[in-house]
Amino acid sequence: MPRLTLSSLLEDILELALPELSRAEGLAASVIRDQILSGRMVLLANPNHHEVRPTLVGQPSGIKVNANIGTSPLRNDAGKELEKLRVAEAAGADTVMDLSTAGDLNAIRIGMLQATRLPLGTVPLYALAQTVVEAGRDPAEITEGQILAEIRTQAEQGVDFMTVHCGLTMRGAELASRERRLLGIVSRGGSIIARWMAKNGRENPFLTRYDDILDIAREHNVTLSLGDGLRPGAGADAGDAAQWDEVAVLGDLQRRAMQAGVQAMIEGPGHVPMDQVEAQIRTMKRLVNGAPLYVLGPLVTDCAPGYDHIAGAIGGALAVRAGADFLCYLTPAEHLTLPDAEDVRQGVMASRVAAQAASSAMGRPSALAREQAVSEGRRDLDWTKLAEHALDPCEVARRRAEHSGEKECAMCGKFCAIRMLSDV
Amino acid sequence: MPRLTLSSLLEDILELALPELSRAEGLAASVIRDQILSGRMVLLANPNHHEVRPTLVGQPSGIKVNANIGTSPLRNDAGKELEKLRVAEAAGADTVMDLSTAGDLNAIRIGMLQATRLPLGTVPLYALAQTVVEAGRDPAEITEGQILAEIRTQAEQGVDFMTVHCGLTMRGAELASRERRLLGIVSRGGSIIARWMAKNGRENPFLTRYDDILDIAREHNVTLSLGDGLRPGAGADAGDAAQWDEVAVLGDLQRRAMQAGVQAMIEGPGHVPMDQVEAQIRTMKRLVNGAPLYVLGPLVTDCAPGYDHIAGAIGGALAVRAGADFLCYLTPAEHLTLPDAEDVRQGVMASRVAAQAASSAMGRPSALAREQAVSEGRRDLDWTKLAEHALDPCEVARRRAEHSGEKECAMCGKFCAIRMLSDV
Repeated sequence: MPRLTLSSLLEDILELALPELSRAEGLAASVIRDQILSGRMVLLANPNHHEVRPTLVGQPSGIKVNANIGTSPLRNDAGKELEKLRVAEAAGADTVMDLSTAGDLNAIRIGMLQATRLPLGTVPLYALAQTVVEAGRDPAEITEGQILAEIRTQAEQGVDFMTVHCGLTMRGAELASRERRLLGIVSRGGSIIARWMAKNGRENPFLTRYDDILDIAREHNVTLSLGDGLRPGAGADAGDAAQWDEVAVLGDLQRRAMQAGVQAMIEGPGHVPMDQVEAQIRTMKRLVNGAPLYVLGPLVTDCAPGYDHIAGAIGGALAVRAGADFLCYLTPAEHLTLPDAEDVRQGVMASRVAAQAASSAMGRPSALAREQAVSEGRRDLDWTKLAEHALDPCEVARRRAEHSGEKECAMCGKFCAIRMLSDV
Repeated sequence: MPRLTLSSLLEDILELALPELSRAEGLAASVIRDQILSGRMVLLANPNHHEVRPTLVGQPSGIKVNANIGTSPLRNDAGKELEKLRVAEAAGADTVMDLSTAGDLNAIRIGMLQATRLPLGTVPLYALAQTVVEAGRDPAEITEGQILAEIRTQAEQGVDFMTVHCGLTMRGAELASRERRLLGIVSRGGSIIARWMAKNGRENPFLTRYDDILDIAREHNVTLSLGDGLRPGAGADAGDAAQWDEVAVLGDLQRRAMQAGVQAMIEGPGHVPMDQVEAQIRTMKRLVNGAPLYVLGPLVTDCAPGYDHIAGAIGGALAVRAGADFLCYLTPAEHLTLPDAEDVRQGVMASRVAAQAASSAMGRPSALAREQAVSEGRRDLDWTKLAEHALDPCEVARRRAEHSGEKECAMCGKFCAIRMLSDV
């Protein structure tokens, strides 16, 4: 197995962060260090991000949850995105990605980096596409020089992890064409690169210039999130040749990253029926050398627009049990419109429910301790204890507020099962 | 294996209902008939319920979803419960249970039976408990005569299925005592019966008078929902001796129901960690002779008050894949307060997402057709088609309303992946 060529920068970050990480994760410092060197764990922390909270992703650290925020051409309000950032933090997100595609993207990104200590991720291709499209040109006109310049700019600004769709090849795009798939390519970044390759008749520039990207990433400890441009956009497309072709390429790119002293994680599907989630996650994990898996959902049904946070929570829980490390939330707005602040809160909570359910099923000590504490609070009708250990203390308090004078909850009142047997 | 002794009443109901059931379920009439005779499927329809829609529960009919509504001592407004009934119907619930414990329970129940064609379920013990408690007496003073009279009254009113906690024995209650369990008995009905047995020093009257209950049920084609008074109230209690003791008794009671010409289904847990859901469902199904399983959740984490509809959707999807037939919803208000109308809507939709995800993973033709239709709508940016086949067309329309003039959704706008490749 490949081992990470540890950069002096990452060595310095580790030295500073290990004591607190060890305490927070309940893992020996030597285990964390060894997992990072094996590539099965990454430490998100770009020193250019002022006061960033170094965050571990990968087995056996705790499952992390990411919230995607950012402007879109049809809903472009940087202030609202900062509000969503605060809501995501309050709801317990571990990281945030700025996926803005409208407005002053540099200003938005810098504003977010200043506003949060959570690791911030981006998709540099979005800024590149916005620039050319706003100049009235085609995304296919993006140059290799622009790509490297944008990645360098964002790395210098302090972005902690970046999605780069390096694994999408001309062969993969052909395998994912409409003739073979129900929904073709549904990744925004993947579709731009596929267009670029088709128009230019050349291989993906993120792949051909991968060594240059690695150089920039190493310089600032930017963790690469190797994107799944060919993720299935419908359950019917899950697990097809296009998807696996890209995963195999990502496995090679993960090895090259390790050799270059760059941390990498792997993005995963997408729309995957329940019966395929475990097989997909386990096979991916094998193909990418055990690197951390960062999954979007998976969505176990295509039919739930308005409720994709729930479809994603079902898939996410299954994925975590099968080995996924990092859940990218989905909100009730997915597939329909840009999420608002309440959607963000619902999305983070749904992913946290999935992570807690899977973690306790996996016997993780901190997850089991939480289950025990909440149930003890419930047994004793001790609402303070229950709220303290619940995933969302504020929601417990809000729901209870109307009946805070009552010992029982308002569902059962005097027919409370717990009280019914208290004197027999 | 036991076979159902078909009553002439059920024979008449089947004769009338089979053509429409066959069409709606996509099953041959002979298959439905045979499954009912084998006890693996039940037909909910009490002829006293005017214009009730006969509804099948059990393999291989479609997975059904139930919504619990009803007043409680701390929230007692019959009008609001009727509003929740309408919301549950609009959201796509297949059945409704009236779990009222406050107000004029007869009037509330009759009002609901008149207001809906969906099969209505109840827990007769709640009315019995309310009567004695309002008279200032102890639930332990409920008499066997009162129990049979209440069941008869409700059967004559038209209640289609009733939860009766016949499987809870003195031995089971002892096994579930606080000394052995984190949370003891959490079923409302179960706790009342445990109190009754402890105070009277006698066996569960629903068990000792089971033959009389069967007589009433047969007379009106009331389907018995054999309750799980000892269901685990915490993940830590799942699968303990108390739970299995009750399930084994329920298996015997299901056989006796079949011999008496009474349809029966079995209620299931409860709080169950993810890693135990499949084993629990498969083992239960075996112990109860393949009878339909009616599951509450299961809740795969104790830590999600405010989000138990999501914890329940994860468990429900796993349970359906393992063989559960009928999902009792959980709402975001579970464990905290009585649900309001919006909670009811969220609860029904969460269960429907779980049912759809599991059904498509099981290859059910109608579920797969729906997946295909929604994804075709998505591929073609045909919002009308997408909404038509989505689980909640109204929510799609509501979310889209603000941007109905746009072809793409407001998440990506001009960076829509589907449009990005439309000209290459």
